[in-house]
Amino acid sequence: MTISPLVDQTIAAIGPLDAAAVAAAEARQGVLTKPPGSLGRLESLSIQLAGILGQPIPQITGKAVIVVAGDHGVAAEGVSAFPAEVTPQMVFNFVAGGAAINALARHAGANPGLTIAKVGYGAANIARGPAMSREDAVRCLEIGINAANEQADAGANLIAGGDMGIGNTTPSAAITAAVTGADVASVTGRGTGVDDAGLEAKIATIRRALEVNQPDGSDGMDVLTKVGGFEIGVLAGVMLGAAARNCAVVVDGFISGAAALIAWRLCPDIAQRYIAAHRSVEPGHNVGLQAMGLSPLLDMEMRLGEGTGAALAMPIVEAAAKCLAEMATFTEAGVSDGDD
Amino acid sequence: MTISPLVDQTIAAIGPLDAAAVAAAEARQGVLTKPPGSLGRLESLSIQLAGILGQPIPQITGKAVIVVAGDHGVAAEGVSAFPAEVTPQMVFNFVAGGAAINALARHAGANPGLTIAKVGYGAANIARGPAMSREDAVRCLEIGINAANEQADAGANLIAGGDMGIGNTTPSAAITAAVTGADVASVTGRGTGVDDAGLEAKIATIRRALEVNQPDGSDGMDVLTKVGGFEIGVLAGVMLGAAARNCAVVVDGFISGAAALIAWRLCPDIAQRYIAAHRSVEPGHNVGLQAMGLSPLLDMEMRLGEGTGAALAMPIVEAAAKCLAEMATFTEAGVSDGDD
Repeated sequence: MTISPLVDQTIAAIGPLDAAAVAAAEARQGVLTKPPGSLGRLESLSIQLAGILGQPIPQITGKAVIVVAGDHGVAAEGVSAFPAEVTPQMVFNFVAGGAAINALARHAGANPGLTIAKVGYGAANIARGPAMSREDAVRCLEIGINAANEQADAGANLIAGGDMGIGNTTPSAAITAAVTGADVASVTGRGTGVDDAGLEAKIATIRRALEVNQPDGSDGMDVLTKVGGFEIGVLAGVMLGAAARNCAVVVDGFISGAAALIAWRLCPDIAQRYIAAHRSVEPGHNVGLQAMGLSPLLDMEMRLGEGTGAALAMPIVEAAAKCLAEMATFTEAGVSDGDD
Repeated sequence: MTISPLVDQTIAAIGPLDAAAVAAAEARQGVLTKPPGSLGRLESLSIQLAGILGQPIPQITGKAVIVVAGDHGVAAEGVSAFPAEVTPQMVFNFVAGGAAINALARHAGANPGLTIAKVGYGAANIARGPAMSREDAVRCLEIGINAANEQADAGANLIAGGDMGIGNTTPSAAITAAVTGADVASVTGRGTGVDDAGLEAKIATIRRALEVNQPDGSDGMDVLTKVGGFEIGVLAGVMLGAAARNCAVVVDGFISGAAALIAWRLCPDIAQRYIAAHRSVEPGHNVGLQAMGLSPLLDMEMRLGEGTGAALAMPIVEAAAKCLAEMATFTEAGVSDGDD
């Protein structure tokens, strides 16, 4: 399958984890001054980071949360509790530094920055036809890859995507159902807060989108084109681009999870480079994570998107790397181990 | 009940949360630029912090993890996979900066420091009699209160305790069983890693400790004196002292949880000032947290102690405060809210 030279090269550059680094990190965890395994997921996370970054003692050199916004024609079906005009309003809020992701990314010490790379005036209404042309889908992926490369060039090796787009839990549910084969009702939640009747209507809209478009769930490009969204495509590109540069990909909530599913269908090896940040309240998020064999670090009952869950998890990921790097071994510290 | 002038005054200073600050924080969360409730536990945490610190927009001004070590006579019963000499060896490792808590406390930006305040040469073997005299128990609480005051004076308002003590999951299980009434087998885990036979022997030892000592689970002083440990008593004092200074108390894992149960029996109001950091692998931890109505922030399969879970949770707690403080309101940002 050929998508475009840049996308093809990017996918080809994503290989398996560095086995030597994994083995070295695993061995070191066994001789640090603590009962073996007692740091739990911090230990496995540090070993995964070693494999991703290709470093026996992995060091986080920079962090980035790439927030992408998109409009969704399907918002016209009344699937959201907020009006579509909130998407551009929130983009201004991001630029002014007043959104949750601003506070959390500052807290995590992520790189600031703004890139303008427009794909178009929003995805079409997926309840009536495909979300976008194949050309637009390619463009989304390429913009995402370029954004990830920019951040990797600036020193980031822990990269997350974040989304803003009124209506975007609807395509995300359609993507999750298409890729995993799960029933629509089991992957559809209340998004920003629709009521019971709204939830029923949303489920019906998503069923219609899948019927009208018949996406092939094994083909990431087909899924993106037919039931995706511009920001979702860009986020999938961010993940591919980051993984190709041996960066760890922190997967935020439901929308980022849907993008992760698309990138995973394009490149199954990428899942080893994913770190699931948190379990969103959106029920479809967990379905998608399970399909990829991922277990989230945090369960904070969040459902905001914007990359907020990913930014919140970044200090945890860094903590894992720092324990592996900074702790003394039993021999260094003169501490008896459990076999004495 | 009179314990000592310092302990009595400290307990008397712990009142209910600041209701006006709670109401103001709650109202502000409702007008920040996000769907209401979408930041999940970050929102409730920010509101709790407002009530604890007595500030409508709470600010974390400093963090401290007070690590306390203790020896346990009951280690002679073979309840641990590690020899008792590891406790002083690990204290040297703490001082040298090579333990997990050093890496994680540095990462969290906690205050460095060392205080020497010896209670004695370790608790007696609880399988054969009381852990300590009433005088020692009072001394433990007072040392902990003084340590918390020192940190509060230095600007910390987010304070955690951490423990080191080979054998200390045994008194912690005894405390948890005594205070909550749970069966010993349901609160006893493998600690640093005993095998099946070791676990059976540990359960039998704890049952014996409760039979021999007959602690009154409703009386924190009685529980501490009969089946406690020096570091556990000091940690209970740290929690009382921190709460009395309107600091938030971050409760680490199983041993800190046992200390939290003792402080809670001495002062039921203190539980509102507890933030449970993580769910330890030790089964008794969850039993204790549930008794106090607490739900942990993290579930990282950790079981190291030292305050590591608390240090890992501190950036999450700070993130909650920062979202409340730094996010723009709908009006400030010119964003339409859900009622438009």
